[in-house]
Amino acid sequence: MVNTKYIQLQARGNTDILDISSQVTAAVRESGINDGTVTIFCPSSTSSVTTIEFESGCLQDLTRLFEEMVSSTGDYAHNYRWGDGNGHSHLRASLLGPSITIPIIERQLCLGTWQQVIFIDFDVRARSRRIVLQIMGD
Amino acid sequence: MVNTKYIQLQARGNTDILDISSQVTAAVRESGINDGTVTIFCPSSTSSVTTIEFESGCLQDLTRLFEEMVSSTGDYAHNYRWGDGNGHSHLRASLLGPSITIPIIERQLCLGTWQQVIFIDFDVRARSRRIVLQIMGD
Amino acid sequence: MVNTKYIQLQARGNTDILDISSQVTAAVRESGINDGTVTIFCPSSTSSVTTIEFESGCLQDLTRLFEEMVSSTGDYAHNYRWGDGNGHSHLRASLLGPSITIPIIERQLCLGTWQQVIFIDFDVRARSRRIVLQIMGD
Repeated sequence: MVNTKYIQLQARGNTDILDISSQVTAAVRESGINDGTVTIFCPSSTSSVTTIEFESGCLQDLTRLFEEMVSSTGDYAHNYRWGDGNGHSHLRASLLGPSITIPIIERQLCLGTWQQVIFIDFDVRARSRRIVLQIMGD
Repeated sequence: MVNTKYIQLQARGNTDILDISSQVTAAVRESGINDGTVTIFCPSSTSSVTTIEFESGCLQDLTRLFEEMVSSTGDYAHNYRWGDGNGHSHLRASLLGPSITIPIIERQLCLGTWQQVIFIDFDVRARSRRIVLQIMGD
Repeated sequence: MVNTKYIQLQARGNTDILDISSQVTAAVRESGINDGTVTIFCPSSTSSVTTIEFESGCLQDLTRLFEEMVSSTGDYAHNYRWGDGNGHSHLRASLLGPSITIPIIERQLCLGTWQQVIFIDFDVRARSRRIVLQIMGD
């Protein structure tokens, strides 16, 4: 069985980090799939998904880490060519990757106690985002 | 067909890197699935999985890289708030991600000759860990 | 349904970045699978897959980012031990990871408008590469 769901988000950009765990949990429940996987995919080149303990300290630290690793004020060939100022957004998204896959066991998303699913919008402006959930299994 | 297996590990923390290839290979064989995928997932916000050539040089280099990128002695908002000293562990785990998915072809895990599956425990203390393997296919 | 395909590439190494979107799209179409996922996997410890906007600015920026994060001229224990000079290649590949999974919806690969699938060869010499596509679904 394959069931496709979408999550619609309003994101502010600039490494805006959103907890999407409850939406993913709800989609898995609605899918009727008991055991399998959910692949969470960003159809975008300036956003990503991963997991984290969703508390303000970790979020602040993660934002600073991305700023240190891939500075938003650095020189990027992408910006010189296209003038949209989001060269760093593309690099951060490529580095983190577009997808994660989480097991579903007895209709439950198999997350740790302190582990939440996050969507990160690395782009430089607010925008509407649609994430794809591909839920597969029995 | 969907088959769930678990790998139980004793990890020492502090970027302890464990080769779990033989456990994953054994689980795939026991599953009875000939062709499909195994998703390896860490239900934790301070550990990750990836692949590497498992030899002491690469392991030493990887440990040093994480120390350079996300220092264990840096200032982290997470630590100020919770006092558990594992702010860097959370960041390293988020950056590397909680899951990888490996094809299974004719009951074999499709790894390269010099490629092993590793679990990395980024937390700051020894602990017991359980990794989830979701094996799917025909 | 499970369908395995391979992509054969000639890569130059040294963070050679190749757009494999059209090969992945063709493989998905040939598989006959309408809805599901394709897992793209590098059976190698010195190459990776991710997505990016495939334009020369982003590619130049990504190459520079890897050089800054994991220098090709740094000291690596792997190189001292094995003398093959690709210690940085192993680290970059482990960090980026060996796999991504992309949803297939109505026979289409679910990519964003400006999002391409890339293979990156981090090794230090030209070589022939084979990537595995595991296509699963209905």
